[in-house]
Amino acid sequence: MKKIAVVLSGSGYLDGSEITEAVSLLIALNQAGAEVSCFAPEVELSVVNHIDGKATGEKRSVLVEAARIARGHVQSLSKLHAKDFDAVAFPGGFGAAKNLCNWAEKGAKCDVNPEAERVIMDFFNASKPIGAICIAPALIARVLGKQKVTVTIGEDAGTIAEILKTGAQHEECPVDDYITDRETKVVSTPAYMYGDAKPNQVFAGIFGLAHELVEWA
Amino acid sequence: MKKIAVVLSGSGYLDGSEITEAVSLLIALNQAGAEVSCFAPEVELSVVNHIDGKATGEKRSVLVEAARIARGHVQSLSKLHAKDFDAVAFPGGFGAAKNLCNWAEKGAKCDVNPEAERVIMDFFNASKPIGAICIAPALIARVLGKQKVTVTIGEDAGTIAEILKTGAQHEECPVDDYITDRETKVVSTPAYMYGDAKPNQVFAGIFGLAHELVEWA
Repeated sequence: MKKIAVVLSGSGYLDGSEITEAVSLLIALNQAGAEVSCFAPEVELSVVNHIDGKATGEKRSVLVEAARIARGHVQSLSKLHAKDFDAVAFPGGFGAAKNLCNWAEKGAKCDVNPEAERVIMDFFNASKPIGAICIAPALIARVLGKQKVTVTIGEDAGTIAEILKTGAQHEECPVDDYITDRETKVVSTPAYMYGDAKPNQVFAGIFGLAHELVEWA
Repeated sequence: MKKIAVVLSGSGYLDGSEITEAVSLLIALNQAGAEVSCFAPEVELSVVNHIDGKATGEKRSVLVEAARIARGHVQSLSKLHAKDFDAVAFPGGFGAAKNLCNWAEKGAKCDVNPEAERVIMDFFNASKPIGAICIAPALIARVLGKQKVTVTIGEDAGTIAEILKTGAQHEECPVDDYITDRETKVVSTPAYMYGDAKPNQVFAGIFGLAHELVEWA
């Protein structure tokens, strides 16, 4: 049984992991026959009200909120090492661009959480597949831009332009599909980068990504 | 296109809606061709830390937290009327037993949130299907016990005994299946009442429930 690590960044798309993406990934990885373990960084998130979209000023623990998705079964990202897993995958949501790095604020010149950067380089150096969903490919581009990684974030021109600045390459992709970079072993799918996508479309793209990851791992 | 209402009770299984159940329901209803709208009551929940399982003493809005699952598209439960929809469905999680009623504290003699009770009776009286997942069938049993509704919560003896006290009947069911009561038009699946279930098993049971609801609606 292949062992896949999933890196969460909270619970809720405006300040953490996009919930439908994260759950779709857990379901699809199980459907593909993998054993899944969840991780999240020990940092704080700035809470956003998911009805009005405004910051509340409140802080919550990314690790503790991620546990809502993982039913308590989540470990510190500092404990994730490529030697223990066959692949790693990152759901999207603003958490990937605010809590795993500050792409949401700084774009291509963003700072990356040291543990997130270490994990990505660890899997890349071990030549093990990396999956990235929605905006998470921007994080991968920031870390693996020098390796000319190819990713997709759908078709959003502004984000594509920013991704190209990292040195990474971009390939357009519909919501229910995924793309594979055979050189760097990075698999990506746009999911809710298409903001009006339906949950079943997001699931379809992630289902493909998950099966690709597991077959390849 | 069939219109299905989903009633959420927060976001996170210890104090709100079970997230994998709620997302599985949204995906499966879309896969079955339905248009989905989410609702939640305007009440407060008592926050539980999802790593250590302890109450934190903090309060959050059920409606605002439910919006994390629904990406902001959630309305007050007071706005849900059977005349506008073809069916209604309730995911589980402790939120269904703490925020939609107080079954978690009082069992068969629990008090039901007035809007939740009104909605269930509204759909029942309109002879429109009602779906219930995990512990949510206990809420349905409390409201429709006099109508001798048949539900499943899996195979947990203590909860089954409590459900029978409401006047309802119980039928055992595996995690990846569902049962249908043709008299009351209630469809139920046990999901995480099997505590060690995997996300793909939960999805399988909810997939069946969702398709049954949409075909019947």
